Amino acid sequence: MMRLPVQSTAEGLDVCFVGIPLDSGASNRSGTRLGPRQIRAESCLLRPYNNATGAAPFESLMVADIGDIPINTYNLAATVDIIHQHIATIAGHGCMPLTLGGDHTITYPILQGIKDQYGPVGLVHVDAHSDTSESMFGEKVTHGTPFRRAVEEGLLDCKRVVQIGLRGSGYTVQDYKWAEEQGFRLVLAQDCWHKSLEPLMAEVRQQMGSGPVYISFDIDGLDPSFAPGTGTPEIGGLTSIQGIEI
Amino acid sequence: MMRLPVQSTAEGLDVCFVGIPLDSGASNRSGTRLGPRQIRAESCLLRPYNNATGAAPFESLMVADIGDIPINTYNLAATVDIIHQHIATIAGHGCMPLTLGGDHTITYPILQGIKDQYGPVGLVHVDAHSDTSESMFGEKVTHGTPFRRAVEEGLLDCKRVVQIGLRGSGYTVQDYKWAEEQGFRLVLAQDCWHKSLEPLMAEVRQQMGSGPVYISFDIDGLDPSFAPGTGTPEIGGLTSIQGIEI
Amino acid sequence: MMRLPVQSTAEGLDVCFVGIPLDSGASNRSGTRLGPRQIRAESCLLRPYNNATGAAPFESLMVADIGDIPINTYNLAATVDIIHQHIATIAGHGCMPLTLGGDHTITYPILQGIKDQYGPVGLVHVDAHSDTSESMFGEKVTHGTPFRRAVEEGLLDCKRVVQIGLRGSGYTVQDYKWAEEQGFRLVLAQDCWHKSLEPLMAEVRQQMGSGPVYISFDIDGLDPSFAPGTGTPEIGGLTSIQGIEI
Amino acid sequence: MMRLPVQSTAEGLDVCFVGIPLDSGASNRSGTRLGPRQIRAESCLLRPYNNATGAAPFESLMVADIGDIPINTYNLAATVDIIHQHIATIAGHGCMPLTLGGDHTITYPILQGIKDQYGPVGLVHVDAHSDTSESMFGEKVTHGTPFRRAVEEGLLDCKRVVQIGLRGSGYTVQDYKWAEEQGFRLVLAQDCWHKSLEPLMAEVRQQMGSGPVYISFDIDGLDPSFAPGTGTPEIGGLTSIQGIEI
Amino acid sequence: MMRLPVQSTAEGLDVCFVGIPLDSGASNRSGTRLGPRQIRAESCLLRPYNNATGAAPFESLMVADIGDIPINTYNLAATVDIIHQHIATIAGHGCMPLTLGGDHTITYPILQGIKDQYGPVGLVHVDAHSDTSESMFGEKVTHGTPFRRAVEEGLLDCKRVVQIGLRGSGYTVQDYKWAEEQGFRLVLAQDCWHKSLEPLMAEVRQQMGSGPVYISFDIDGLDPSFAPGTGTPEIGGLTSIQGIEI
Amino acid sequence: MMRLPVQSTAEGLDVCFVGIPLDSGASNRSGTRLGPRQIRAESCLLRPYNNATGAAPFESLMVADIGDIPINTYNLAATVDIIHQHIATIAGHGCMPLTLGGDHTITYPILQGIKDQYGPVGLVHVDAHSDTSESMFGEKVTHGTPFRRAVEEGLLDCKRVVQIGLRGSGYTVQDYKWAEEQGFRLVLAQDCWHKSLEPLMAEVRQQMGSGPVYISFDIDGLDPSFAPGTGTPEIGGLTSIQGIEI
Repeated sequence: MMRLPVQSTAEGLDVCFVGIPLDSGASNRSGTRLGPRQIRAESCLLRPYNNATGAAPFESLMVADIGDIPINTYNLAATVDIIHQHIATIAGHGCMPLTLGGDHTITYPILQGIKDQYGPVGLVHVDAHSDTSESMFGEKVTHGTPFRRAVEEGLLDCKRVVQIGLRGSGYTVQDYKWAEEQGFRLVLAQDCWHKSLEPLMAEVRQQMGSGPVYISFDIDGLDPSFAPGTGTPEIGGLTSIQGIEI
Repeated sequence: MMRLPVQSTAEGLDVCFVGIPLDSGASNRSGTRLGPRQIRAESCLLRPYNNATGAAPFESLMVADIGDIPINTYNLAATVDIIHQHIATIAGHGCMPLTLGGDHTITYPILQGIKDQYGPVGLVHVDAHSDTSESMFGEKVTHGTPFRRAVEEGLLDCKRVVQIGLRGSGYTVQDYKWAEEQGFRLVLAQDCWHKSLEPLMAEVRQQMGSGPVYISFDIDGLDPSFAPGTGTPEIGGLTSIQGIEI
Repeated sequence: MMRLPVQSTAEGLDVCFVGIPLDSGASNRSGTRLGPRQIRAESCLLRPYNNATGAAPFESLMVADIGDIPINTYNLAATVDIIHQHIATIAGHGCMPLTLGGDHTITYPILQGIKDQYGPVGLVHVDAHSDTSESMFGEKVTHGTPFRRAVEEGLLDCKRVVQIGLRGSGYTVQDYKWAEEQGFRLVLAQDCWHKSLEPLMAEVRQQMGSGPVYISFDIDGLDPSFAPGTGTPEIGGLTSIQGIEI
Repeated sequence: MMRLPVQSTAEGLDVCFVGIPLDSGASNRSGTRLGPRQIRAESCLLRPYNNATGAAPFESLMVADIGDIPINTYNLAATVDIIHQHIATIAGHGCMPLTLGGDHTITYPILQGIKDQYGPVGLVHVDAHSDTSESMFGEKVTHGTPFRRAVEEGLLDCKRVVQIGLRGSGYTVQDYKWAEEQGFRLVLAQDCWHKSLEPLMAEVRQQMGSGPVYISFDIDGLDPSFAPGTGTPEIGGLTSIQGIEI
Repeated sequence: MMRLPVQSTAEGLDVCFVGIPLDSGASNRSGTRLGPRQIRAESCLLRPYNNATGAAPFESLMVADIGDIPINTYNLAATVDIIHQHIATIAGHGCMPLTLGGDHTITYPILQGIKDQYGPVGLVHVDAHSDTSESMFGEKVTHGTPFRRAVEEGLLDCKRVVQIGLRGSGYTVQDYKWAEEQGFRLVLAQDCWHKSLEPLMAEVRQQMGSGPVYISFDIDGLDPSFAPGTGTPEIGGLTSIQGIEI
Repeated sequence: MMRLPVQSTAEGLDVCFVGIPLDSGASNRSGTRLGPRQIRAESCLLRPYNNATGAAPFESLMVADIGDIPINTYNLAATVDIIHQHIATIAGHGCMPLTLGGDHTITYPILQGIKDQYGPVGLVHVDAHSDTSESMFGEKVTHGTPFRRAVEEGLLDCKRVVQIGLRGSGYTVQDYKWAEEQGFRLVLAQDCWHKSLEPLMAEVRQQMGSGPVYISFDIDGLDPSFAPGTGTPEIGGLTSIQGIEI
């Protein structure tokens, strides 16, 4: 990742990249299992200094890539346990994990592992979907349900949750109702059009306050005209990038 | 289409989807004959409720997919007659057709079939091109001429016609002159940049008034950066979606 | 499929096509969930009469497409039960199922459903792999284990099993040993090169005798130069076609 | 083409390449209109001397590329007349045309133009299909009918016609009967497998004798594993290359 | 190009298109050598009149395509000399070259050839990168250094240089410092968002004044969501279009 | 590569994989610089035991991947020196390098590095081209000249050289003459059709005798129907795999 050094564990690191090549939690299209590999391949073009913001993360943080979590492709329940344990171990080293997905199911066990170290966290969630369904096809753990499970298990500080970019067709007029009832702030996609998002980001910083915050970015939080791969079977690596910020 | 029921005729329906797999009316690239199939395949991801507008069409309308019109691929004149007859039959059932094209030639016989039931209609036409050429390569019926033919045959209520999104290179400085002379309102693409289109839509609703309106959407009415498939040979399903609204 | 009629059940049919859009049993690449859709789309070019063999199946058999089996994408164990029940129902109608996969995990529950009606069957299995592993990543039910499970449950008449086209790299020198010990005939890919396979097919017919035979065709039974899609992530519909012949 | 000089007419040439960018005569997939462009682009890699056969055509023949015939994309009947006239003009210059298609409809008017100069010709036709249907969807002139029309108009010397590579599914057991009744020799694809075609070519040379011979090569005369583009919508340039040899 | 006439030299022309199929100066991905061919193929859709601006260049200018410059693919230093000589010859005919790249290395020798005729020129440079590195991997002449070399050789009138669209990650906080020290105006990408660029263009016209101006457009000056081909290996023709305006 | 361990040098290894991401020596298409990356990505499917031959290389050899040689993309002469030094260093460790190319220019400096350790070697070269041109576009070091340079510098034991698979179009009838004069055995592609290559391989083993042998495999040594990527711009990783066998 980004031509960073490779390590086998997160020991001694401030931040680590870790891949989770999962797609068995996805409902309509598979392929995100190739996400970590493709993100790493493309990241070789990234340089260490951000010309627009002045950020230079590698000057103050020790960062490395610790490879992929060895999930069980055939068994989603087993995979959830594996992810939980690995993230807890990383967090236990005092290292903040930046995960490369993988379908959005992964956020549920990641938040489990995060909680073991940090308690309930705030959440900045950029996505076309709220991912708070009660279940999909009768299953509780899928790419459409992670934040419902997270709330039920007390993994989130619900007053410090914002979901940005919600759009598209739904099942009922009440698709977002549950999330709102938990205290989430919802920002619809159409409220982000034709303007700078800087004022919104200022509000989000205020909402988050000073506690730990988890950031979850789903690529369909971009407009489909910018990320058409998320809507076609040709692209294997549609994925999410996620991490924690304290 | 959208996992809707399939019927063999439009009888008993309020609205029907119908495909027209034509590309022999297209000048530079072919492939729109695969449009209906590809639109249907992608539509399986659509859900019935629109989160942004609150629209829930299937709660009040009986809708089904009645398949494709059996065009004659080798003979454009014969195809025009076939489309005319099928659309007239659908409209005769009191059903509003939503056609999945197919190159833009199809709008001419569709409007013929519509007129048999409704008389001249208003038109909301989103497209990069006015499609009002006198002829192309000496032929009167092509994807660049449907609205010229429609005016000549009295299929349109010219005061209630708006063409939105016109752009690109042309043959002369007078490419749009004929359309303006018929009373069409023309909205150029550059007048749609950097702002919400809601005010324009309010004006269009006022222009359309209370009579029947036909909506014709050509995918190149989007910016080519959003629909690059319309400019490359890799994509078979560049197409138009059209329908009538009363 | 092949522009055949569509039915909702197998009742009254001699043969039916049925899709199983599964890929959660696949280890390295996903995408076979799109297999049934893509096979059906391509099959529209097929005509009813085979010029080379004289076969004209639709003159003597009642055939229709009964759609896809509603699997549970998130739960492989639940999916195996669903497939078992559906195949048993089809076979119970006296109809022979031709399934469109789907990764090769599906053959295990298909053979369960077949056995309920026919008892243990012979097997003609064309594949690059024997698919008789004890387990993969600790799981018993995967795309690499169906014929091991089938033997353990008595679904196969092991003396009437042939596996054709085995090739490629393996884990040990004993990869094929278990299959041979069950009495399977194994035909390696290199023994099929540079010659007609007609003599082999005559031997297979003799081996199969007169009992019911199940045919399972995995596309990587073709040389990878002929089916490169099976080795690249670009293609969604790598799949198997299977059926029973009495 | 092959980095040869470009001329506007065939005057003074022994042989010319000429493109016919037609696909409105094709039934299931379009795209061959891009064939001449793509063949020319790829041909820039060709060198003038054939290492295997010793052929060095440009040492004894004056060859150039005279561009495309300006067909009428919207009107197949008009296009047939345009092709007929252009080929007759080329042949009238004493120049042998090598055409780059374009769907197989083009061979009918090419043979018309050839006959004006040479009378009925022999034919070596490599193709998966006989292309001798009476009509397709009621139309007499399509990509499936050129050789039926050619026989009816006396363009072919039927005793000197061979069709090589016929295969695939058909409509009836009698698909090839008409061709055989005209005296054509038919060579099925399965009779070309697993052996050198040199003996067949010797027989073909004997059959052709000393009169003028037209060669028509359809890319689906290759096995679909070698030319998969002819079976998928991704490739625009599926096409035929044709020419006359005296 | 644009179906314009083809000439072998620039003699008698006001403006010429000329291709430079180079990619050996590119650091991360190659393929721009196919740029001129692909731009020409796509340009066949362009018509001579611009509906938005009223520009009709071919009414007042004699324009033709004079083909590609015969570069030496294996030797970048030799190629730089070849380009210099060809551009100088074109400019010596009083013809303004519009070059189709090719990676951005080409601008250095083009400016050399331009200077021979016009002296130092102003520069409007649209690009994600400043391309003013001292060297890349120890080499002075690469796609990342042309404007540094141009300044060193006095090819540019530095007060009349603007670079528009700079963005992305860099090596240090000082990536743009050298360019600013030369007197270039730098316009960052984030300063172009959410607004019309017409005011900026008015300022640029004022900065350029009345002397000759060279325009250099790198396709990554567009947002990567609009030109994703520049970030993936699938597209061969990522390229720049450049020219001089007096 | 093949999920082998990664090392930074060849010290202590029997065999190492090493990538050379070069394409600036290629004449018509670039992209082989992505070859090592793509070969490694695909190799993750390989298992350690060869079912057909019984080979199990990792049971007796210490093998690792030592990454890519840091070539100079902009300067082919400098790159040749870099490769020479790296290969000499690897060979100096008593390790046999298996290189992943990269265009065929690389074989010239590889053979230089090999000679420093082993003296002149035998050569088994599978390729569509002899790669023994005197020069290309005036340059001595290109992908079409490595074996000419190797002979001139005494890197090969010419009596123990075989080139297999030569085919395609050439510049003159004497394209292969120089190679034959050096004592190379040439095996044309057409002499490999329709039969097993085992007898040829036995002859090659006899020709090679007991001295060290270098194996160079160019992917266009396969028929273009099996490796179409080598003839289209879509594939970045057309490449060669090479190594030494004692």
